Amino acid sequence: MTPRIVLHEVGPRDGLQVEKAVAPTETKLRWIGALSEAGLDVVQAGSFVHPEKVPQMADTDELFRRLTAPGAERKGHALYSGLVLNEKGLDRALACGVEMVCLGVSASETHSRKNTGMGVAEATGRIVATAKKAVEAGRKVQVSVQSAFGCGFEGAVPEENVLAIARSYVDAGLLTISLADTAGHACPAQVERLFGRLLELDPGIEAACHFHDTYGAGMANVWAALRAGVVTVESSFAGLGGCPFTKVAAGNVATEDVVHTLQREGKRTDVDLARLIEIARDVESFFGREMPGRVHRTGPAPQLRKQESPA
Amino acid sequence: MTPRIVLHEVGPRDGLQVEKAVAPTETKLRWIGALSEAGLDVVQAGSFVHPEKVPQMADTDELFRRLTAPGAERKGHALYSGLVLNEKGLDRALACGVEMVCLGVSASETHSRKNTGMGVAEATGRIVATAKKAVEAGRKVQVSVQSAFGCGFEGAVPEENVLAIARSYVDAGLLTISLADTAGHACPAQVERLFGRLLELDPGIEAACHFHDTYGAGMANVWAALRAGVVTVESSFAGLGGCPFTKVAAGNVATEDVVHTLQREGKRTDVDLARLIEIARDVESFFGREMPGRVHRTGPAPQLRKQESPA
Repeated sequence: MTPRIVLHEVGPRDGLQVEKAVAPTETKLRWIGALSEAGLDVVQAGSFVHPEKVPQMADTDELFRRLTAPGAERKGHALYSGLVLNEKGLDRALACGVEMVCLGVSASETHSRKNTGMGVAEATGRIVATAKKAVEAGRKVQVSVQSAFGCGFEGAVPEENVLAIARSYVDAGLLTISLADTAGHACPAQVERLFGRLLELDPGIEAACHFHDTYGAGMANVWAALRAGVVTVESSFAGLGGCPFTKVAAGNVATEDVVHTLQREGKRTDVDLARLIEIARDVESFFGREMPGRVHRTGPAPQLRKQESPA
Repeated sequence: MTPRIVLHEVGPRDGLQVEKAVAPTETKLRWIGALSEAGLDVVQAGSFVHPEKVPQMADTDELFRRLTAPGAERKGHALYSGLVLNEKGLDRALACGVEMVCLGVSASETHSRKNTGMGVAEATGRIVATAKKAVEAGRKVQVSVQSAFGCGFEGAVPEENVLAIARSYVDAGLLTISLADTAGHACPAQVERLFGRLLELDPGIEAACHFHDTYGAGMANVWAALRAGVVTVESSFAGLGGCPFTKVAAGNVATEDVVHTLQREGKRTDVDLARLIEIARDVESFFGREMPGRVHRTGPAPQLRKQESPA
């Protein structure tokens, strides 16, 4: 297992995008700033999707401008990442100061066509070309394979299809690669096997994992991924999330639950768990319903309670 | 990992004992029969606690009589287990036909005293003596260590204390041993390490695991336990459960979530997942609130949908 696990918070993007109630920009800035201050390494602030398609993401450009403009007050040390779907999105991302560009291709033909109007092969070519431009523009870049462990439409997704996309990434020199369980189908043995095969493609690969907790195996899958050598865990505060274009998908694994489990093992004790719990309670109260994470409801186990802020 | 994982359903005992609304005996018989028919290997029907202390368990003797009496209509092939707290409980258990006697000691002094009025050393002596009588009476016996991964009152529980109790079991020839995460504190690395140490005590040990999902790591802990060589998984249908004598404890890991994850890996495909989902929905509707399991809400992933009963 990697000595220092990297925590990539995707709640402000993957979590919020499915919420009908649009959070005001100021509210998002409060959450994003607090997530960074709590010690997370990367925070995904938004997605460069068409504003009419996902109104929750309409303020993405403004968010990045306010987060990264020269002279902006930086809270914490997180890098701000943004999801880019196409070349037009990359232009927007580069113009508003995105620090880490995330792009992906679905390994499922059906999901790919529903999401992008393109089949997997065409989408891979386009995304690789766009990712290379982002690299040329000096940005950190992460490329992902979505529906890597199964698809809400197609069911099983052949591992060879996932690895073929990953090979295209590696061939283009794109070595920061995330495998995303978009519909939440992954199970731990599959996770360990597929990440093992991914990491065999090139010794330089830095792998990330992204799991939804649809069937209750989210944290088990995180654990299996870390065992396999994954460096970065993507998660959402409070367990927000889901994918509007798959049939069944629960939220991402909850950031504070992941941090709690890691800290129980003595890892990432630098992260302020009490602060993460506050932010998760804040988002729960904003949307007025119970969010799926556990630790924001229970508080930390007694072994970790020293970390709670004085009440 | 063991070729055939044994599934021990503890919902009718560990799950129901925290519910204020007492389920009628006929309702319990419906659930227990259905859990057995679905293909689970052991179903824990009740606990021989004083009826006034836990009114939900007041019909335990009657339940076992009706489940196991000569001439009783057996549904499925499950063995019926019962939790025995003391010698008086064993007498009741032997009289009413319990097929597998489960007994345990808490590794936490505070939890042990609150639960039994005895310290760990005294409780261990009593439980070992009672367990030996159950063996002499020809019953299958499982002994457990409760609060094996942490305690709601004391926080960390030293592994040496857990292993000392386990050594007393082994010395008495009691080799079916469960480590129970009563308060839900376990994390996967701890689980793998502690079960590894347990299994080193004697090559004949058959280990079982029992996790509560308080902090979201329940399934990850199951996975870690199976990797360590655990044979039996204890779980509750719908994720029912908790412990009335600890401060914070969520339900057990949900049986149908465990089975779903195993079946996604090609294991225990003999179990009728659709039936388990029906039973979980039935108990949810009986208590009139959302239960913590996932799969009874989502249904199976498409890869497993062939198993759904025709609607």
